Amino acid sequence: MQKQSGNSKAAEQGLSEVSGSGYVVGVDIGGTNLRLALADMAGTLGARWSTTTAGSRSADAVVDLICSGVEDLLQQTSVPRSALKAIAAGAPGITDVDAGVVIATSYLLGWQDVSLRDLLESALGIPALVDNDVNLGALGEGWAGAAKGTGDFVFIAIGTGIGAGIILDGRPFRGMGWSAGEIGYMLVPGVSDEPVGHGEPGALESIIGGEGIKAQWQSLWHANSTALPRDVTATEIFDGALKGDPLAQSVLRRSARMLADAIYNISLVLNCPLFVLGGGVGMHAALCDATQQVLEKWNARAPVQLRRSILGADAQLMGAIRLALDAANSSLPTIR
Amino acid sequence: MQKQSGNSKAAEQGLSEVSGSGYVVGVDIGGTNLRLALADMAGTLGARWSTTTAGSRSADAVVDLICSGVEDLLQQTSVPRSALKAIAAGAPGITDVDAGVVIATSYLLGWQDVSLRDLLESALGIPALVDNDVNLGALGEGWAGAAKGTGDFVFIAIGTGIGAGIILDGRPFRGMGWSAGEIGYMLVPGVSDEPVGHGEPGALESIIGGEGIKAQWQSLWHANSTALPRDVTATEIFDGALKGDPLAQSVLRRSARMLADAIYNISLVLNCPLFVLGGGVGMHAALCDATQQVLEKWNARAPVQLRRSILGADAQLMGAIRLALDAANSSLPTIR
Repeated sequence: MQKQSGNSKAAEQGLSEVSGSGYVVGVDIGGTNLRLALADMAGTLGARWSTTTAGSRSADAVVDLICSGVEDLLQQTSVPRSALKAIAAGAPGITDVDAGVVIATSYLLGWQDVSLRDLLESALGIPALVDNDVNLGALGEGWAGAAKGTGDFVFIAIGTGIGAGIILDGRPFRGMGWSAGEIGYMLVPGVSDEPVGHGEPGALESIIGGEGIKAQWQSLWHANSTALPRDVTATEIFDGALKGDPLAQSVLRRSARMLADAIYNISLVLNCPLFVLGGGVGMHAALCDATQQVLEKWNARAPVQLRRSILGADAQLMGAIRLALDAANSSLPTIR
Repeated sequence: MQKQSGNSKAAEQGLSEVSGSGYVVGVDIGGTNLRLALADMAGTLGARWSTTTAGSRSADAVVDLICSGVEDLLQQTSVPRSALKAIAAGAPGITDVDAGVVIATSYLLGWQDVSLRDLLESALGIPALVDNDVNLGALGEGWAGAAKGTGDFVFIAIGTGIGAGIILDGRPFRGMGWSAGEIGYMLVPGVSDEPVGHGEPGALESIIGGEGIKAQWQSLWHANSTALPRDVTATEIFDGALKGDPLAQSVLRRSARMLADAIYNISLVLNCPLFVLGGGVGMHAALCDATQQVLEKWNARAPVQLRRSILGADAQLMGAIRLALDAANSSLPTIR
C-alpha cells in the first residue's frame, strides 16, 4: 500500500488543518501515567498515546517519553513535523506558568524547580506552555465540558489528593505564588487543625481523598457491619453505598458532608455559584448527589450548583490542548 | 469677622484644589453611626461630620442625613457647592457596585434593593458610587493604610460580625453576586456546620465576632476563674488577656485559633500572602499577635503575614474617599 499523504490521512481521522495552521499536542503528566493527544487547530482530537511514568520519573526521562509520544502521534496521523505548532503540558504540582517552571510536584514525581517549558521547547523546537494539572482540568471543563460557556466556576479534582482549579471571568486564577486552590489542606469541622508535616497529605484530603476514604472505611470496618471486604477502593465504597450497604453509606455521608463544608467555604470566599467535581473519586455520582443534598440544606436562597465532570479523565488533557492552541495562536504571525 | 473666601479657608485647612478640580465626600454608613469626610483631589481630609443613625434607618432618612452632613462639611470648609465633584458611600451589606444598589444590609438597617446611588445623585446633583463597607475598608488600607503599595491582600473586619474585603491585582474582587468575602459563615474546626437561619449570625462570627466572644466569655465565666466581671466587651476581654487574666487568655487563644483557621482557609483558596485585621475587635493587638503565632506554626515555609489596620475606624471612610476620587476623575472632561 502506498503511503498516504499527511493531509489526506489526517483528514480521514476527522482532523482539519484550518488554513494550513497546523496541529498541537496536549500532555497530561501524572504520578503514574503520561498521556498525550494530538488535535487540529479547531481542537478536534485526532490521536492519543499513553505510557507509564513508573521508573521514568526524572524530568529528563519524562521529556524523553513525551518526545517518543509526539513521534508516535505524528506517525499515527501522518502529520508532518513541520505542521506541529505548539505543545502544552500539565504537571501535578505548583507551576509558574509565566516562567514555565514546575516549582514542586507531589511525592510521586518529586520535582523541584524544573524548567519544563524550556526542556520541551529545546527537545521539540516548538512553543511550549506548562501549567498545574488541576488548573488545566478546569480549563478543559470550561472549554469543552461541564462548565462550557460559564466564566466563573471552580473545578475540584479528587483522586488520591484534592485540588481546585479556579476560573474567574473566563480565566484561570492561579494566585500570587501559583498555588491558589490548594484546598487539600482546608480546615473544616471534623478535621484536625494540628500542623501537617511537609509532604504529608493535607487535613481535608487525609479524610476525603481517595486514600483518606479508604482509611475511614478500614477504621470502621468489621465483618458484621458490611458485606464488602476490608480492602476496597473509594469508588467501590461509593458503589456499595448506592447498593444500600450501611457502612458504605455512612462513609459516603461523612465524606459528602466534609466536601460540602469545603465547597461552602470556597463559595463564601469567591462568591462563585458553580462547582464541577472531577477526578476518579470526585466524579462518582453517589458523592456528587450526597454533597449537593448537604449544600441545598444550607443555602436555600442561592444554593451552590454542583455538576459532575463531563470530560472525566480527559479534563486535564483537553485543558492542555486548549492551552497549546492559545500558544499556537499567539505565535502565529499577525495577518495584515 | 469678615467671611473668608472658600479657597483661602480651605487652604488654611490644608486642602488644595488641584488645578481647580474640586473636592469629594466619603460616607461610611454603619448600623449605628453615619460618618462623612470631605477631601481634596489629592485625597487630603479637610473636615469630618458624624451623627447617629438610630431612629433614621430608612434609606430616605439616611440620605437626608447625608445631605445635612455634606452641607455642614461645605460650611466648615467654605468650599462652594460647585466645587464638589463626587460622593461615595459604603453600606454594611451586599452592594451591586455597577447598578449602585444596596441589595441587602444587616439587621441594623434592614435595607433591601435600595438604589442608593440614584438617591444620592438626585439629592446632591453630583456623581455618586456605592460599595460594601468592608470592600471600602480594604480599598482604604490598600490606598493609605497597612497594605499601602500591595496589590494582593485580604482585609478582615471583625466588629459585631465578620467580613472580608479582597484585593487582587490592585482591584477589589467582589464576586459574581457581589458577596465575595462573606466569611462570617465559614466552617472551621470547632464550629457547628448545621444550617444557619436567615438573619442569624454565621457559624464563625457567632463564636469570634464581638458578640460571639462575649458569649464565649459568659459561658465560661465564674467568679473564681477571673478578676474581670461577667459583663465585659470583647476588647476588654483581650485587654484582660494582655494583663495575664487566665480566663481571658483562654478565650483569646480559642478566638485566635479559629481566626487563624479561617485566614488559613482563605489563603489556601486565594494564595494571598497578606492579611490586614481591622474593625474594633479585629485590630486588637492581643488578637493579632496570638493569631499570627498560630499561623506561623502551620506554615513554616511561607507563613501568611498579618498586619493590624493602620486606619482603624477610618478605613471605610478612606476607602469611600478613594472611590469618590475615582468617580470624580472618571467624570472629568478629557484634556486634549
